[in-house]
Amino acid sequence: MTLHDELLANNARYAEELSAGALRVRPLRQIAILTCMDSRYTAQGVLGLSMGDSHVIRNAGGRASDDAIRSLVLSSTALGTRWCVVIHHTDCGLLGVTNDELQTRVEAVTGVRPSIDFLPFEDVASSVRDDVATLRACPYFPPGYQVLGFVYDVTTGLLRSIEA
Amino acid sequence: MTLHDELLANNARYAEELSAGALRVRPLRQIAILTCMDSRYTAQGVLGLSMGDSHVIRNAGGRASDDAIRSLVLSSTALGTRWCVVIHHTDCGLLGVTNDELQTRVEAVTGVRPSIDFLPFEDVASSVRDDVATLRACPYFPPGYQVLGFVYDVTTGLLRSIEA
Repeated sequence: MTLHDELLANNARYAEELSAGALRVRPLRQIAILTCMDSRYTAQGVLGLSMGDSHVIRNAGGRASDDAIRSLVLSSTALGTRWCVVIHHTDCGLLGVTNDELQTRVEAVTGVRPSIDFLPFEDVASSVRDDVATLRACPYFPPGYQVLGFVYDVTTGLLRSIEA
Repeated sequence: MTLHDELLANNARYAEELSAGALRVRPLRQIAILTCMDSRYTAQGVLGLSMGDSHVIRNAGGRASDDAIRSLVLSSTALGTRWCVVIHHTDCGLLGVTNDELQTRVEAVTGVRPSIDFLPFEDVASSVRDDVATLRACPYFPPGYQVLGFVYDVTTGLLRSIEA
């Protein structure tokens, strides 16, 4: 079976069991989570939230990139979220590497060297602190918008609060 | 209880039940999913994938933005993914609106008009087709990299294949 057909067969089983039809586009708990693309956790699972509760924005590192800000501004001003929860994690692929190393890696695999800034970082608590500060300084969020920061330990499953 | 304390209490229960400590940073199924931040589904749930199987990149709309490409290039060249699955969905907050309307909305809420391109779209199948084409044309993916496109119906839970 091709991957395409396997995924559609999986989805047919999922749809049979679905009971989420009553949920609406606005997140019930008014929360948006910004976290990494890492495969080992779901954002809702780590925070004990339910389907329908929160927007989930994920990218490499969980960084407050321009695109994450695009998403969070929409989430808050158009869809009513009032909290952003930033979560970076231990054992991240962006931790302790440099742009030069990552660009060299891409060139080795593809033959083309990208000018992409991959947003790597040296310390996971500092990267959370930096991204929380970036979001708190952004003028496009509603009055009273709040940003929380955490580091997630992929081995223990525990979150650690990061004070800004 | 504050939101901060509630989320940490939820997380402590999650960590107690966690059995994912053996998973590694490289996704087992070599899949990266690009989808919307919408609260009503998880990317893995919709596709019947398990923890550890796939990277998950989420933003407003599930668009192939520069930041999504940053994440997908890292995912493939550094962490071994060989497939990208693009999923946009029905009843999306970016469907049938314009940048002007969204910028006006932000200005009404915050007093500041952003110059952000929110990447809205007129038709959800077309937006999937556009983003699949963008990714297929990107020179920074490994040889043999494959991109699949789907529309997710948030009411029925069903995926529909989009041919490029």
